[in-house]
Amino acid sequence: MTTQREKAIRLRELHQGPRILALPNVWDCAGARLVEEAGFSVVATASASMSWSLGYPDGQSLPREEMLFMVRRIAATAQVPVTVDIEAGYGANSVSEVIKTAQGVLDAGAVGINLEDGDGDGGLTDIAFQSEKIIALRALGEFAGIPIVINARTDVFHAGILEPDEQFPEAVRRLNAYRAAGADCLFAPFVTDAPMISALVRDLHGPLNILAMPGMPSLCELEAMGVRRVSTGPALFLAAATTARRMAEHLREDGVCRTAGPGSIIYPEMNRLMMRVTEL
Amino acid sequence: MTTQREKAIRLRELHQGPRILALPNVWDCAGARLVEEAGFSVVATASASMSWSLGYPDGQSLPREEMLFMVRRIAATAQVPVTVDIEAGYGANSVSEVIKTAQGVLDAGAVGINLEDGDGDGGLTDIAFQSEKIIALRALGEFAGIPIVINARTDVFHAGILEPDEQFPEAVRRLNAYRAAGADCLFAPFVTDAPMISALVRDLHGPLNILAMPGMPSLCELEAMGVRRVSTGPALFLAAATTARRMAEHLREDGVCRTAGPGSIIYPEMNRLMMRVTEL
Repeated sequence: MTTQREKAIRLRELHQGPRILALPNVWDCAGARLVEEAGFSVVATASASMSWSLGYPDGQSLPREEMLFMVRRIAATAQVPVTVDIEAGYGANSVSEVIKTAQGVLDAGAVGINLEDGDGDGGLTDIAFQSEKIIALRALGEFAGIPIVINARTDVFHAGILEPDEQFPEAVRRLNAYRAAGADCLFAPFVTDAPMISALVRDLHGPLNILAMPGMPSLCELEAMGVRRVSTGPALFLAAATTARRMAEHLREDGVCRTAGPGSIIYPEMNRLMMRVTEL
Repeated sequence: MTTQREKAIRLRELHQGPRILALPNVWDCAGARLVEEAGFSVVATASASMSWSLGYPDGQSLPREEMLFMVRRIAATAQVPVTVDIEAGYGANSVSEVIKTAQGVLDAGAVGINLEDGDGDGGLTDIAFQSEKIIALRALGEFAGIPIVINARTDVFHAGILEPDEQFPEAVRRLNAYRAAGADCLFAPFVTDAPMISALVRDLHGPLNILAMPGMPSLCELEAMGVRRVSTGPALFLAAATTARRMAEHLREDGVCRTAGPGSIIYPEMNRLMMRVTEL
């Protein structure tokens, strides 16, 4: 039995290379088990996916307690370390609220978080204030004896926040400040351009996390470029939802219930996958 | 704004024909919205799917309170009537526990339930005792002023419970007893054979619900045979999970993040779908 502390240490180590850390983000316990069974070493959540699954749009609409309920279930189900997308930590304007959220994440059994600097209002949180949150999170991890892995995300590349030519220098300035404050990994989503990714690797003082998007370099190429972590965000959710919708449409239009074709997961397989856990 | 009482009445009416009631069972809020948007008039949950999503195997392992949490979210998200698979009602041996569960379902905003007669131990609950539960549920609906729609399920066709030649007469005996006790619909899952489905329609005193399985007659054919309701059980979940697993495997093997192909749901579409609700 791995302790929560050991899981946190393991998650941090996975950012040191040489292999890139690939995270097909999930939102529920079945997803956690499927990802684990597929050989991934970490279960990571996507806030958009979890919000949708629980009936909310993305963007911190999902109440903290409902998010923590699902994280608790996921952490109880997965054997590997679990890291959670807590958006702005339910505290764009409050360090103590971020700490409260992170404490809830640790209590739920997870060992890592994503903390973003979008202020939820179309702008960016002040760098110094965002850094304070990271310093406080680092202190929480030390106090709790579980060195929570902090993935500090900047939203500067999100369309419409900054002029394109301001994005790169601002991202470097912000992410290096977050690194100095104690972040374990630096997350720059929405960057797809290979030269810019390489420039980020060159200029950042810590491991870089990229969001996998269509048309991006492959994991292998990203690894060679020095990227340490790649996450898929809501991609798995959107694909799964598309399949569910297609099935419903087939039922309505052709009147038949199809499967997802050869290699589909069948009832006993899925049931066994979930059984293993509670029978431990 | 439709009241809960009106939703219950509407759900019952949908069992009277002439159109068959098709239910692509879901397990979360995104599924509820997708099914609603695809034009289905009811959102129905599948216990297996919801159990897996929350980290449990099928078969009443999912704690009642966790099931009710998710039902509450689904009922808050969907506009159409919501009906819930409560398995044996968390009361294979207790009428009052079944009532407690149904009360929770009504409090959560749903208006229908599935109640099965498998005893969770590989056998069947005594007919008279199962009928008592249905009588009590009917009384609860009257007392609450929300005429909860009771879909009484028999597990006699589940492999290994009875000899094949005993199944049909026992199903008819049980389902007609449940109908006499107040059930609105009679559910005989695991029957796929057209002549047997027709014989059930002929011998039952109430609307018949069939589980859609590969190789079954189409909805159109089932409707012509007099079947009133068809549900998919965990089919949508298994297909969606298969897609999620394939995406994870592609990421691991090819190092790229794919989509579910042409017509895939994209982020803004999914987000808008979930936004509608909370903005009402």
